[in-house]
Amino acid sequence: MALIVQKFGGTSVGSVERIEQVADKVAGFRDRGHDIVVVVSAMSGETNRLIDLAQQIQDQPVPREMDVLVSTGEQVTTALLAMALQKRGKAAKSYNGSQVRILTDDAHTKARIREIDDARLHADLDAGNVVVVAGFQGVDEHGNITTLGRGGSDTTAVALAAALKADECQIYTDVDGVYTTDPRVVDGAKRLDKITFEEMLEMASMGSKVLQIRAVEFAGKYNVPLRVLHSFQDGPGTLISLEEEEDPMETPTIAGIAFNRDEAKLTILGVPDMPGVAFKILGPIGQANIEVDVIVQNVAEDNSTDFTFTVSRSELARGEAILKQIATELGAREVRSDSRIAKISVVGVGMRSHAGVASQMFEALADVGINIQMITTSEIKISVIIEEKFLELAVRALHSSFGLDAEPQEESAA
Amino acid sequence: MALIVQKFGGTSVGSVERIEQVADKVAGFRDRGHDIVVVVSAMSGETNRLIDLAQQIQDQPVPREMDVLVSTGEQVTTALLAMALQKRGKAAKSYNGSQVRILTDDAHTKARIREIDDARLHADLDAGNVVVVAGFQGVDEHGNITTLGRGGSDTTAVALAAALKADECQIYTDVDGVYTTDPRVVDGAKRLDKITFEEMLEMASMGSKVLQIRAVEFAGKYNVPLRVLHSFQDGPGTLISLEEEEDPMETPTIAGIAFNRDEAKLTILGVPDMPGVAFKILGPIGQANIEVDVIVQNVAEDNSTDFTFTVSRSELARGEAILKQIATELGAREVRSDSRIAKISVVGVGMRSHAGVASQMFEALADVGINIQMITTSEIKISVIIEEKFLELAVRALHSSFGLDAEPQEESAA
Repeated sequence: MALIVQKFGGTSVGSVERIEQVADKVAGFRDRGHDIVVVVSAMSGETNRLIDLAQQIQDQPVPREMDVLVSTGEQVTTALLAMALQKRGKAAKSYNGSQVRILTDDAHTKARIREIDDARLHADLDAGNVVVVAGFQGVDEHGNITTLGRGGSDTTAVALAAALKADECQIYTDVDGVYTTDPRVVDGAKRLDKITFEEMLEMASMGSKVLQIRAVEFAGKYNVPLRVLHSFQDGPGTLISLEEEEDPMETPTIAGIAFNRDEAKLTILGVPDMPGVAFKILGPIGQANIEVDVIVQNVAEDNSTDFTFTVSRSELARGEAILKQIATELGAREVRSDSRIAKISVVGVGMRSHAGVASQMFEALADVGINIQMITTSEIKISVIIEEKFLELAVRALHSSFGLDAEPQEESAA
Repeated sequence: MALIVQKFGGTSVGSVERIEQVADKVAGFRDRGHDIVVVVSAMSGETNRLIDLAQQIQDQPVPREMDVLVSTGEQVTTALLAMALQKRGKAAKSYNGSQVRILTDDAHTKARIREIDDARLHADLDAGNVVVVAGFQGVDEHGNITTLGRGGSDTTAVALAAALKADECQIYTDVDGVYTTDPRVVDGAKRLDKITFEEMLEMASMGSKVLQIRAVEFAGKYNVPLRVLHSFQDGPGTLISLEEEEDPMETPTIAGIAFNRDEAKLTILGVPDMPGVAFKILGPIGQANIEVDVIVQNVAEDNSTDFTFTVSRSELARGEAILKQIATELGAREVRSDSRIAKISVVGVGMRSHAGVASQMFEALADVGINIQMITTSEIKISVIIEEKFLELAVRALHSSFGLDAEPQEESAA
């Protein structure tokens, strides 16, 4: 008998038939004696339908009213799932964010959760109900409806699990777990039984769409065990939890190979090497709300230096225009841009205690003739920027070099 | 400068284009300096779409969850209308029933309003906002979402007008006012400038779909002046208010001719004439939740009497089955049913002080050869049941007899 929070996304509740399937799954957990809180998203397509209605009226509708509008999507799903559970003889009650109440700040369309009142939910669970909660939404201290932004339902689930001190937070999705890398790129990609919060964060930030970064951060902060599972297939999924010390021999050095094709590179050449130059370059970029990922500054020669950073491809043109203005102001020599790059990362908490991960990575890439353009490292990750056309080749070489490939019979099944 | 509550139904907000038109109208009132509270229904078709989703899951979903589901429809409209007003430079804020808060009892899907907190709305109005409120919904004392049942948006508007002490409650609809009778039946039907609450109640209860009965009752109880207007045409509409004494000479004796084709007649013949027999007949009918309208009991002869009543046609079969069982128990002679009837009423507060309305009505019907099957009377109404095929003939005869026909040039325009 455990208390489990389960989250089903838009595709998993995309039709009445799928809501019925979700109800079967939830009812199965109830039959095994567990207390269940279910967090649901809007039926797939519904949020876009609502946004489209708003945009027929205004390009930039007032955020407060956008939240009033789109929050109805999840509310519809909660009612339908509660009905489907009641049809199966399971007592169930739906809640929207305001009813729970999930108190947030007042940053409409991107609010952050401040506090969750768990009194009503505990009372309902004690009375034998499945509690069905609308994901993605909350309420500010003045009673205005807020939303947490896209993907916020994962965050709702984790925050509820933390508040209720749940034994596990299960995120149901369209994959059966977290993989060592994208199975579409490497046939032998393996499902991981376990991964740490830190590793998952690095994998997620590299474009792995299984979980929202915010939800993983939240889970790590409050130590909520997260499990990624397939909505409509049985299986153990992948458990995301704190690093476990008890079995260090079996801890793999490397958890997986993550990658991202969505970045572009901006370089400013011949910048005078003086204090504050990095701020002079990145300050205006940040003010323009352009997010910067990898930043590399070379060692200065002849009192001038080169400065390179990556941004999202969709921001490249804007970033380049700003950078050219900065170059003029600083008297820099040249600005270069390149959108044909990819970022690849080797991720694993094990690398903290294992020397040689970096050299093994660089050797594996050299062996297949791939040139490395930029390198950054963190405690549990080494990332390189390479030419985009070599991406698949690089991922396969690294996946194999770090011993992540599955057994041969699985390889042939692809 | 007045405080006006305006209600727009589902057809009036049935598309983004229509919501924009409503926003134009509301903005026009703001420009003339009025404070405006707008009550909206769900976009036409939306409530049925939601009910259909629910019924794919369960024939009889739990009422609490039905309310959670369908209340989203109005919430969507409030957000879209607020956006459309903001686009026109008018400050606007949307509210759902729970936010206002419109406190109701806990009778889900047919809740009754207990209390309205007007503090937030007054503050928003004082700050220059148009306040847009979701009709049809409220919240019980435990925070559960409730709905007032179909047509409840009219009731929301009137209740808000009463709570806010509004100068007028305007109900926008697809007709330009209340008519002396149905213009589809009588070419010369006239729009009334004024009608009293009592008259409107009698007209509405006879199937005139312009306003919900509950809303008129509510308006009468709290003396909220109600005005029926066309959503997309200009015009004065019809003002529904307390009986005015100042100009008795011009008060017409009769306000209008109402009718209803939706009733059927059940007769039980040869019932023993003894105390309690009416209860023995109507008790089981009421317990089966069948609503009874006209009830007539003839004077007893030979210790036995005949008892006739009308029910909704859709309930005729059920009512007849129950009545046959009662007939057996009471030793009555026979049960007869007839669904080919119509009910016609002459309505007017003026008849209180004018003798001869009944005889004029019966004479007008006799002149065109129509037989009267049943008669009931109230303070301001005389109703007769006739054969359905004579309905149009009867309405025209009465409309003309009581001098309600419009001037000739309007008659020829039909």
